[in-house]
Amino acid sequence: MTLILALDFGGTKLAAAVTQLGFREWLRYERHLSPVDGNATTDLEIMRSLIHSLLQGETPAVIGVSFGGPVDATTGIVRLSHHVPGWENLPLKDLLEKEFGVSASVDNDANVAALGEHRFGAGQGYDSLFYITVSTGVGGGWILNSQPWRGTAGMAGEIGHMVVNPAGPVCLCGKRGCVERLTSGPYMALDAKEYLLKQSNHFQGKKLRALVNNNLDLITGKIISDAAAQGDDLAVNILHTGAWALGVGIGNVANLINPQRFILGGSVTKAGKNWWNTVQNTARETALPEIDFEIIPAALGDDAPLWGAVALAESVLTSR
Amino acid sequence: MTLILALDFGGTKLAAAVTQLGFREWLRYERHLSPVDGNATTDLEIMRSLIHSLLQGETPAVIGVSFGGPVDATTGIVRLSHHVPGWENLPLKDLLEKEFGVSASVDNDANVAALGEHRFGAGQGYDSLFYITVSTGVGGGWILNSQPWRGTAGMAGEIGHMVVNPAGPVCLCGKRGCVERLTSGPYMALDAKEYLLKQSNHFQGKKLRALVNNNLDLITGKIISDAAAQGDDLAVNILHTGAWALGVGIGNVANLINPQRFILGGSVTKAGKNWWNTVQNTARETALPEIDFEIIPAALGDDAPLWGAVALAESVLTSR
Repeated sequence: MTLILALDFGGTKLAAAVTQLGFREWLRYERHLSPVDGNATTDLEIMRSLIHSLLQGETPAVIGVSFGGPVDATTGIVRLSHHVPGWENLPLKDLLEKEFGVSASVDNDANVAALGEHRFGAGQGYDSLFYITVSTGVGGGWILNSQPWRGTAGMAGEIGHMVVNPAGPVCLCGKRGCVERLTSGPYMALDAKEYLLKQSNHFQGKKLRALVNNNLDLITGKIISDAAAQGDDLAVNILHTGAWALGVGIGNVANLINPQRFILGGSVTKAGKNWWNTVQNTARETALPEIDFEIIPAALGDDAPLWGAVALAESVLTSR
Repeated sequence: MTLILALDFGGTKLAAAVTQLGFREWLRYERHLSPVDGNATTDLEIMRSLIHSLLQGETPAVIGVSFGGPVDATTGIVRLSHHVPGWENLPLKDLLEKEFGVSASVDNDANVAALGEHRFGAGQGYDSLFYITVSTGVGGGWILNSQPWRGTAGMAGEIGHMVVNPAGPVCLCGKRGCVERLTSGPYMALDAKEYLLKQSNHFQGKKLRALVNNNLDLITGKIISDAAAQGDDLAVNILHTGAWALGVGIGNVANLINPQRFILGGSVTKAGKNWWNTVQNTARETALPEIDFEIIPAALGDDAPLWGAVALAESVLTSR
């Protein structure tokens, strides 16, 4: 039995699972929230305990790893995590290989999720696709010629920091009007909060205010979706701007690379039909008329990075 | 002797050349301007006469073709020309193969020029690059993993219609503030002319006016470059906006695909040091700090499509 160990170091959660080569279901699965004040050492400790609980004394043939941050996929060295300190230049692949005595392959979560959707999800049978996660951040992963395309320095896929409105609000990256600045959950929440703090007449965002009992710090991307679904005018506007920004980004990408499919995952993509319609229509208007593509929801949901880690592990086995 | 015939159907000129497999110089070379009221039939007639003059009774081993418009590179069928009527759905590859009894390979000029620069020019030794031509239009061609990347429908590379300023002027494509709308020669000329027609005080653009003796219809992209070089304020502004738009486009592409090199060709790239500096600086500011790339001038100049056609032809020979 060829056991495959799949690991997902997310920004807020750690997950691990084992399956068998060729299987499409988990044999065993474990997940754990990252501690709020954690670091790379505590994340690794928690992951170790998940792994030992999963393996039950068995040895995996290979390990595939999804990491929530930039990684050099050729060396398996993590560059950093934007959420958890202590990951700077940590040789994760080497560390796992030494500890478990088997080969490991490590890549960033967007690339790995793209691979997962291509192999097991909404991208099966398509030889070019762009997977986009729209959640606390916005990132993307490429499959071109049925292979991951990572770019020279493994940095390809950064649709989140494409500028779509140079007159827009300032992003953490220093630029204005990036896709991520307009469409990610936390930034939508920030925009709603700032708007509500500034206006004195309380004409807009009444339902949004009601949903958080006037405690504006409780606003999240999810709550904006909920308020928009109830017809809240401010929430509808903010969600629309975010969907527009993503649609422009997707249309631009279609013009540049002309992939067959765009696959969207992440919490913000659960914002409902109006959000999807705006993304679709804006992307269609932005792309040249000769350029066809589909935009569809991810099929694997939160498990995309773990299944992608399985695909990554399988590619280590087949390349031997 | 393995003779290679290279053809370039440009929007305004037709060129053909012959070389020998492995050679890096033309044996013979011919070019001809397209007739002003020409069509596909007259273009083909002129090209035939160039070919017969070049071949001098010899038979080429293979034909490589660059076409100035969208082409289905797998079938060699031209979709259309934006400059010359009658090219709609013309099976150029089949037509040449029947007429000359040898294999032909056809692709659009940006893809072919990218291939030419990769094989013989500024992209030698780089396995990922994006070639951008900035001239009457703005187009691009990809080399990824040392191979052309054409996209699902052969439409990849359309950086010209990436929206960089949604509040910008309307482009022929229907969108506002595309890269091409701001940076191509004819559009820069149009913007200058419209500005000069509107203003009554004649404070701006004095040197630009002088260069065309107040006949605003004579303004071209080249004349804007010349006026800017003389310090004309209006020309400097327009050229700067164009370089800014291209820089944003390049930075966005760097974030998305992370290629090693950007190679810029076409008449507008001869606009001088300030233009290049603005492109470089804007691209650097737009790309994430972790993403490295170089932006350099094309090495093959106007011959890039012809040398690319040679590379296309050689790849037919080696794939046998």
